Amino acid sequence: MAVNRRIVLASRPVGAPTEENFRLEEAPVPAPGPGEMLLRTVWLSLDPYMRGRMSTAKSYAQPVEIGGVMVAGTVARVVESNADGFAPGDLVLSQSGWQEYAVAGPKAVQKLDPAAFPVSLALGTLGMPGMTAYVGLIDIGEPKEGETVVVSAASGAVGSVVGQLAKARGCRAVGIAGGKAKCDYVTGELGFDACVDYRAPDFKARLREACPAGIDVYFENVGGEVGDACFELLNPFARVPVCGRIANYNDTALPDGPDRLPALMGQVLVRRLKIQGFIVTERWNRYPDFIREVGALVREGRLRYREDVVDGLENAPRAFLGLLQGKNFGKLLVRVSPDGAR
Amino acid sequence: MAVNRRIVLASRPVGAPTEENFRLEEAPVPAPGPGEMLLRTVWLSLDPYMRGRMSTAKSYAQPVEIGGVMVAGTVARVVESNADGFAPGDLVLSQSGWQEYAVAGPKAVQKLDPAAFPVSLALGTLGMPGMTAYVGLIDIGEPKEGETVVVSAASGAVGSVVGQLAKARGCRAVGIAGGKAKCDYVTGELGFDACVDYRAPDFKARLREACPAGIDVYFENVGGEVGDACFELLNPFARVPVCGRIANYNDTALPDGPDRLPALMGQVLVRRLKIQGFIVTERWNRYPDFIREVGALVREGRLRYREDVVDGLENAPRAFLGLLQGKNFGKLLVRVSPDGAR
Repeated sequence: MAVNRRIVLASRPVGAPTEENFRLEEAPVPAPGPGEMLLRTVWLSLDPYMRGRMSTAKSYAQPVEIGGVMVAGTVARVVESNADGFAPGDLVLSQSGWQEYAVAGPKAVQKLDPAAFPVSLALGTLGMPGMTAYVGLIDIGEPKEGETVVVSAASGAVGSVVGQLAKARGCRAVGIAGGKAKCDYVTGELGFDACVDYRAPDFKARLREACPAGIDVYFENVGGEVGDACFELLNPFARVPVCGRIANYNDTALPDGPDRLPALMGQVLVRRLKIQGFIVTERWNRYPDFIREVGALVREGRLRYREDVVDGLENAPRAFLGLLQGKNFGKLLVRVSPDGAR
Repeated sequence: MAVNRRIVLASRPVGAPTEENFRLEEAPVPAPGPGEMLLRTVWLSLDPYMRGRMSTAKSYAQPVEIGGVMVAGTVARVVESNADGFAPGDLVLSQSGWQEYAVAGPKAVQKLDPAAFPVSLALGTLGMPGMTAYVGLIDIGEPKEGETVVVSAASGAVGSVVGQLAKARGCRAVGIAGGKAKCDYVTGELGFDACVDYRAPDFKARLREACPAGIDVYFENVGGEVGDACFELLNPFARVPVCGRIANYNDTALPDGPDRLPALMGQVLVRRLKIQGFIVTERWNRYPDFIREVGALVREGRLRYREDVVDGLENAPRAFLGLLQGKNFGKLLVRVSPDGAR
């Protein structure tokens, strides 16, 4: 009998997760029922939001159960199909999770056309991370020509789209990334106007230099000290889309209440700031606009991307832990089966 | 020669202002030049924003110079006029400041019709405070029918309009005020659904009871612990128009940076909050809409107000210090001349 390898949540992390929080299991390959299909995972997407699903802390989504398969967006190949309109060999975008095989109905997947774009882009620049960049920057950030847009994790799946989209809209794009290689990539390959290394001892001074006219949009991707440094440079009427705060995801002792609110609220008032949290899945109505604008930029070669590929499902936990520490360089993907499709 | 009494800023306060920061001076009544008019102040408006003008801390407006007349909106009677379209006896809205006489050109004033509304309303419900309530609640708060709107300083010039406008829009209006008399007024006279006394030892529990479905719009008027308590009850997608933070205006040791940002930003993300500062003078384009909606509510007796009148310019400093401590009950006005106009 064919085996389905899968990675389940073995225990909930306290602070930073470790490999012990995950367990590789073997199970029978499931059989598709009437109207369903059997999918074989090709690409597995690893994203920071998964840290939230490992915990029971109040959030906008249900946590993964202990013993449950870790959630993930995937690109999969149809192996068997009882579903109208899907045939073996088709490639689909699915939510198969961290496993080699899954069963799904036709409404839970979206067919991909490998002739249009490399299919792995459906997990990155042209998928959830790209949409996150789009709705956060355009709908909440409201960038205007000539303004300065700053994004942290600038070489990553979301940040790379934020900055390039800002450039396409006529803004000054300033990235923040860890280390010289990433910064060089962000300015050289992605075409940002500047990129500042947050590990540099004079980070704050360099950030200030890179933003001589202050910051009009700060796309909050990481939180922590990087976020604080950006807040200090916000111009009057600046907008702060709050997308993530990876620097704080492992905090164990977050205070209950916002007890230093006065300082922030004073600045919100004096500088007339807008700070707004958002979650991409609640703004999916913008997908057609997103795919039209960002798809065109990708086709024209004006919006570039980089994928960081790890081979083998068994290596997903270690790769994910690295993601939380900023060790990936580009969109982090696990090649689960040697299908060749990309 | 006629005397113009005026109150100037004698020194900048450190922490809470005292009467020693002000000085009553006598000067000659100024003479209007060509095209100008001489105004005699009837009503002087005292508002929390004036605390900001006493300090040099970075803000959205220039501070009053040491020795300069304190700024204020006023209702004044035209005494002499070299300006087309203005005759002695006319009543105007002006920015005369804390003094008995001032000279102004026609562009700096707005003629008032005492037959339409009591003229003092131009400094309160139908003036800057009312407009502040309007743009903050409607444009930033975006209240929807059935939602819960909470406003602090609920019996005051801004808060009273926020809550009554929320009611008119079909929301549940919950006020926060200091003491039983104000709370009774807010529910009895102004028709809020509930009002919670922030001085009560069980304030937080009472606030929670008054908001059984959480808070959808928190109109931030005061800051401090009241603001913190409201933040804890914000629903997903809640909006926080940041209008003022009177509880913090006298703070001397505000931290430079928002160093407890992580906790707040975490909540902004998880609850998809929108927090936005605004300044009414930058949104004056909404004045026609405001006066149409709020003017109609006042005429129909559906939006009520209360004025707290102090007689004599010399009493303005003490009244202002009381305002910062919440001692006023209703819109605080100084009757500068016994004109009778209201």
